[in-house]
Amino acid sequence: MIAATGSIGLDTTRTPFKTVERVLGGSASYFSYCASFFDKVGLVSVVGEDFPEKYWRELEAKGVDLKGVQRNKGKTFHFDSSFSYDLYARTANATEFGVLASFEPRVPDEYKDAKTVYAGTNNPKIQLEFLRQFGKQKVSFIDTIEHFIANDRAALLRVLSEADGFVLNDVEARMLCGTPNLVKAGKKIHSLGPEAVVIKKGEHGCLVFHGGGVCAFPAFPLEEVLDPTGAGDSFAGGFVGSLARDGKISWAGLKRAAVLGSVMGSFACEGYGLDRLRKLDERQIDERFEFYREMTSL
Amino acid sequence: MIAATGSIGLDTTRTPFKTVERVLGGSASYFSYCASFFDKVGLVSVVGEDFPEKYWRELEAKGVDLKGVQRNKGKTFHFDSSFSYDLYARTANATEFGVLASFEPRVPDEYKDAKTVYAGTNNPKIQLEFLRQFGKQKVSFIDTIEHFIANDRAALLRVLSEADGFVLNDVEARMLCGTPNLVKAGKKIHSLGPEAVVIKKGEHGCLVFHGGGVCAFPAFPLEEVLDPTGAGDSFAGGFVGSLARDGKISWAGLKRAAVLGSVMGSFACEGYGLDRLRKLDERQIDERFEFYREMTSL
Repeated sequence: MIAATGSIGLDTTRTPFKTVERVLGGSASYFSYCASFFDKVGLVSVVGEDFPEKYWRELEAKGVDLKGVQRNKGKTFHFDSSFSYDLYARTANATEFGVLASFEPRVPDEYKDAKTVYAGTNNPKIQLEFLRQFGKQKVSFIDTIEHFIANDRAALLRVLSEADGFVLNDVEARMLCGTPNLVKAGKKIHSLGPEAVVIKKGEHGCLVFHGGGVCAFPAFPLEEVLDPTGAGDSFAGGFVGSLARDGKISWAGLKRAAVLGSVMGSFACEGYGLDRLRKLDERQIDERFEFYREMTSL
Repeated sequence: MIAATGSIGLDTTRTPFKTVERVLGGSASYFSYCASFFDKVGLVSVVGEDFPEKYWRELEAKGVDLKGVQRNKGKTFHFDSSFSYDLYARTANATEFGVLASFEPRVPDEYKDAKTVYAGTNNPKIQLEFLRQFGKQKVSFIDTIEHFIANDRAALLRVLSEADGFVLNDVEARMLCGTPNLVKAGKKIHSLGPEAVVIKKGEHGCLVFHGGGVCAFPAFPLEEVLDPTGAGDSFAGGFVGSLARDGKISWAGLKRAAVLGSVMGSFACEGYGLDRLRKLDERQIDERFEFYREMTSL
């Protein structure tokens, strides 16, 4: 099992071509949707009283265990954002944390033997508490955002020193390490603890660091991007999911994971919200993986 | 033989760490330095009376045929530019065209049977005249810059319709096609004539288009970037050089060429001006190619 925490939210996303309102979103939704193609996922999160029953049922139907999802008094996390014409720049219009503001992850006993643990973006102190609720057997991954790099650096370094893997984007890596060079940044972060570091670069692919070395991967070349929301979390879902299937961290596994992360991220961009992922099947994932393998074989 | 035209210049490059003044530069210098690892290069270009003899001798010593390089009355092309702290943004301080302003490429008879022809950035009318001085046997490649996309679009489309390959960067591709999506842009350009299109993305690698399809390649991950000057021209030298060795355009050859282009571009960044390329040998190229092959093998 992959035990994961993160946000479940309702997204209002305004693109130049279409606006979708209060659709299922949040890092944990994308992550678990994608990771569930690779392993059973148990989610630890929170929703409010307004959370639509259909989304709850949808996640359950996908096989995501929701025992760890609290239904608290108040509103579900809501994120309203607009994309620029080229879909590269996103502007936040409103971020209403609702029940997420006071969320404390409580891990159900049934999850505690999970072999793989993923602590999505949150206050690093809460990430650490989350990770510590699991036994020694786990391979653990964390994510973060600029806010915590700027405001909770000490706590972030602490959780980094205990995590096995760290997934972050290029802006965050540069900020954390104070260097524009991503290879330097990744090696620095690797030296702070995590056995595996992935720096995501969106449409430009990713860099993976392990055992003192680095590998670069292109993103899956996409002609039709409708909505990049959740692409990074979908990448994490494919990446962590693939490694969970391996049960350990190795270069061969990390390369496969980076490609499957890119593949899942590419699908996420091809529909509004989770729309493309809803229609996804394993055969389509395998096809993109094979395309990728052929593309990079020399 | 690869017959190539482009600029030979003197570069003054100001980086946050070091400034180099009036060192050998220009697109043709980088291109031919790199391409000469793969095939004999015959250069068609121009220098002024102030061009240092040592640079002439250096290019000759590298095996570059300079029969097609005119020594004209006036000053050698001089480009003075500064890089930002992170080495990503370059500002032009002065562009003194000198003898390049009135340059008309004249191809020596000895070059006219060249199997591979490369027309570096220039007015597209002059590129077309250059290409037409060769026989039917040639595989031809061109490059361009934003200036000609904005001001000589019709002539550029004309030369594109006659060229076998087109090498350009991401900004140029978006501008030429009026779309932010590089996969769409590349396919559009491919449909305008060239059998092979390469969109260079600097540190993010490149996209290659051929036969209606697309492949993405990461750049070689570099920890130490000293001076990105000439990286794109070095990429072109490795790319065209590798294809010249094949003698034809195929997917297998294009993939190898994209990697060898990335490898040559990576070396160019590791020294000021041509410094790193001067110390380069075939074994080092092979090593990076092998690293790349291993990095992307799944």
